[in-house]
This record gives sequence, structure tokens and C-alpha cells, in this order.
Amino acid sequence: WHPDPGRGGQAAVLHQGIGEEEVEVTIRIAILTISDAGSRGERVDTSGDAIAGWAAVRGYDVVARTIIPDEMDAIAEQFIVWIDDFGPELILTTGGTGLSPRDVTPEATDAILERRAPGIPELLRVSALAKNPRAALSRGVAGVREGVLIINLPGSTSAVREGLAALEPIIEHAVDLASGRRTAH
Amino acid sequence: WHPDPGRGGQAAVLHQGIGEEEVEVTIRIAILTISDAGSRGERVDTSGDAIAGWAAVRGYDVVARTIIPDEMDAIAEQFIVWIDDFGPELILTTGGTGLSPRDVTPEATDAILERRAPGIPELLRVSALAKNPRAALSRGVAGVREGVLIINLPGSTSAVREGLAALEPIIEHAVDLASGRRTAH
Amino acid sequence: WHPDPGRGGQAAVLHQGIGEEEVEVTIRIAILTISDAGSRGERVDTSGDAIAGWAAVRGYDVVARTIIPDEMDAIAEQFIVWIDDFGPELILTTGGTGLSPRDVTPEATDAILERRAPGIPELLRVSALAKNPRAALSRGVAGVREGVLIINLPGSTSAVREGLAALEPIIEHAVDLASGRRTAH
Repeated sequence: WHPDPGRGGQAAVLHQGIGEEEVEVTIRIAILTISDAGSRGERVDTSGDAIAGWAAVRGYDVVARTIIPDEMDAIAEQFIVWIDDFGPELILTTGGTGLSPRDVTPEATDAILERRAPGIPELLRVSALAKNPRAALSRGVAGVREGVLIINLPGSTSAVREGLAALEPIIEHAVDLASGRRTAH
Repeated sequence: WHPDPGRGGQAAVLHQGIGEEEVEVTIRIAILTISDAGSRGERVDTSGDAIAGWAAVRGYDVVARTIIPDEMDAIAEQFIVWIDDFGPELILTTGGTGLSPRDVTPEATDAILERRAPGIPELLRVSALAKNPRAALSRGVAGVREGVLIINLPGSTSAVREGLAALEPIIEHAVDLASGRRTAH
Repeated sequence: WHPDPGRGGQAAVLHQGIGEEEVEVTIRIAILTISDAGSRGERVDTSGDAIAGWAAVRGYDVVARTIIPDEMDAIAEQFIVWIDDFGPELILTTGGTGLSPRDVTPEATDAILERRAPGIPELLRVSALAKNPRAALSRGVAGVREGVLIINLPGSTSAVREGLAALEPIIEHAVDLASGRRTAH
């Protein structure tokens, strides 16, 4: 699902910083589902749907979305093509972060990151541990490439929902910083 | 201490997944103690004993166990030889994870890992921090090589016991995933 | 600000280990502020001041302190020159750990570390998260080079104060281990 890359800012949220002017800010987001079964159409992408629904509620622009198999090169290439062609500010992935032999999302992401942000996957895991100790098995990473923030979320739909909830308090600030729209005070 | 590599499954636990058949599952485990003093016989390996005792209680098969000095190459080679010769599904190490100049277990482990699982050492440290802030100084890593899950535990016997307790809720599921016996739901 | 590298131990604290002799121990500490604006004199280095004040209260020797811009090579070189010329046991940095395009302190630090200590930045972030979820965006690292413990603290003065408070229970033990003054029990 590839909408026209030119659009943007149709939906917008009011973004208010302390001591700053109110400015309309939306986030241009791309959603990448990594799943062998999903890419063959054998599985409904409820995790990707959960991200898209969350983005809609928050007024973010989904500028690209697709499902690809658990292949290292295909994942890495998808990041690069999207960053070049669709200008996302945030790419959220779901799937391929576990311990199974086919799970290579963290490796593919790491390979194209310029700078890592280890505190983001730590936040996702630590906030999930109390409810579900298996959160410790998620190997997701996060970081920045060319000003684009990339975050690996787990594959299960409930884990995606919990991860998004954990990110909510920081995601707009994080995108502002990574994109260079705003520097830290 | 090298038992016959061919045996396995003598002790077994009942492993029950949600919506799955009950199957008898045991884990083939190898225990590596890394200690200069221990390798010279100047120190009793109470930490290795703690892991062996834990494995016995849980019905896991200890397929290999030894003590080696804090030497990077020796540690890395031990992992590779064991994986080739004894077919372990899980290798637990104890010792060599601290800040002292001789502590190189994380570096030796990292050098042979194919995929890292940073959430596992995070779990070990975060769960220990409340009781002992020095847990932050453990540099242990975890990950997978050829389907074998490898986890660095700290060197002290009490820290090993606490680490094993923290791993209990996830270790069988983790080994199932890493070995490819079961894929994530 | 470069005091005579020869001095040391003028201020000292009583350091008492369990079952050990009481020995006078001070830490030789170097403070590196990384800030473009600070290095141009456009910003008062209140974060560096906070570290210096903390060191004074605890009786540590500040053997070197300076402000440099957010330049990867300059940061890495500063670590190496200080380690060679001033013999610090601990280098604390402040600034340059965020997601902004100019933030490269973790990369510069990582480039010169011999061994990483991921549990230290985890401790800093996890202990700050409850009060401020944006702590997850700090990308700071820590580790050892030539027996010198190096820790990245965030740039904001309040975050530095909280980070130092989190380090207090472990910092002397950590320096003892890293420097080889004492081995783990």
C-alpha cells in the first residue's frame, strides 16, 4: 500500500512545547510488517493494522505500508527505498524480533542504522516485563538513519499495542529531535 | 566433566503450551565456569554447582561442564567445540562478566554469537538492581549461535541463583524458539 | 582547565570494604562537556559544574576538565589524550547523547572503548524513566579503556544530577574493579 508520496500534513495534531509557539505538527510514518506467512497472504496483518489505527487516532500521516518476508536483505533495502522515496520521519516495524531462526529484523535494522538508540527498546521491554516476562526475548533495536527514527516493535498484536502505549509520551519529541526540527533544550 | 554426548532425554519435564499437545521436553544444557583461580583448582566452583543443581531439579540434561581460565580465545573456542561435539541447546556461563581487567567473557561470547538477545541480560540486571545496585556492573550478554542459546550469568553464587530464578519463567520457551523446535505464535 | 597532572590524593575519602582494611581512596576524575554552544562560550556549563560540585563533595580529584564541540573525532581524541597525559580513573561526559543530528557522544565513546559496560547506561535510564520517560532517548554508553571507566551522562543539568545520584552506590567499586585496584570477591 503506497499512497502518493507527495501528500502530507492533511491530518495534524496540535503540538505544544513548554515556552514555545504552538505549531501544527504531524508525523510522516511508514509501517513495515515483517512476516513470512503475512507476505504470502496466509495471515491477516493485524499488527500492522494496530499501528495504522494508532497513527490515525493520533493524526499521523501513513506515507507507506507493506508486508515483506523475514529476509535480511529485503528488510534492509525496504528501509533505504522508503527513506529515499517517501520521506518518512518515523518507520515502525512489527515482527521478526524473536529468537526463532527466521527472525532477523534486528540484524537488518542494525545494518542500516547510523546511530543506535538503545534506550527505546529498553523502554519497550522493561515496561512490558511486569505483565509478560517473555518480553525479554524481543531482540528489537531502534535508532536513526538520515534523520529518520526507526523502531522495531514485536510481532504480536497485543505486544504492538503495549509498545505503542509505552512510546506515546516520547514519540513526537523523539521525531522532532531525530529529524532536526528541534534541538534539545 | 564430559558425559557421553549421545545420551539425552533421560530426565524429562512435562512441557505444556497453550493449545498444544503435551510433549515431554528436556533441555540439553552445558555449563561453562570461567575463572582463573577455579581453572587452577584453587577455588571450588560453587557457581557451576548452583547451575548444575538447578538443572537437576528442573530435569534438564547436563551434557557438558568444565572450568576454564579468563582467556578470550579459550572461551570462544569452548563454545564452538561444545556446539559441534555435544549438541547442547543452552549454554550457561558463570564468571568473567565484571569490570576487572581479566573479565572478558562478554567479549568472547559476543565474538561467536550470530544474533544477540539484549533483553535477556537486561532482565537479569534489572531484576537484580532492586536488591543489589552492583548488578549494573555485570557486562553479560546473551544470544544465539547455530540454534544454541548462550547466556552469561555473573560469577558470584548468589547472583547466579538470582539470575536462574529470573530466567525460569522464560527459559524453556526461549530454548524452544532458538532451536527452531517451535515458532512464535 | 588543566591542573597539574602530577597532583592527586589531596582530598580523600575513607573507603571501607567488607572484611578489608580501611584505606584512603580518592578517584582521579576528568570531566568532559560536549556542547557546540558551550565550546563557543555562548552557554554556561552548568552540567559540568554539577559534576565538579559532586566530585568536590565526595572528595574526588578533578584532574582535567574542558568543553569541546559535538565533533566525533575531537571527542574521541580528548579521551585518548587525557588517558595518556592525566591518568584519570574515571571520565564523566555530559552532553551529546540525544537523537539530534549533532549528537555523537555515544559513537565517539564507543569508538575508543575496549570493553563495554551496558548495565551502567541501563541503570541511568531505568532509574530516570519513572520521573521522566524522555530518559529513554538518551543514547549514552559506558565502558573501559586502559583501566579507565568512561560514562556518558545526559546534557541537562537536572539529568546529570539524577544520573550522579544513581551512580553513587556503585561508582567507587566500579572504579576499583576497572582500574585493577581490587578484583571482584
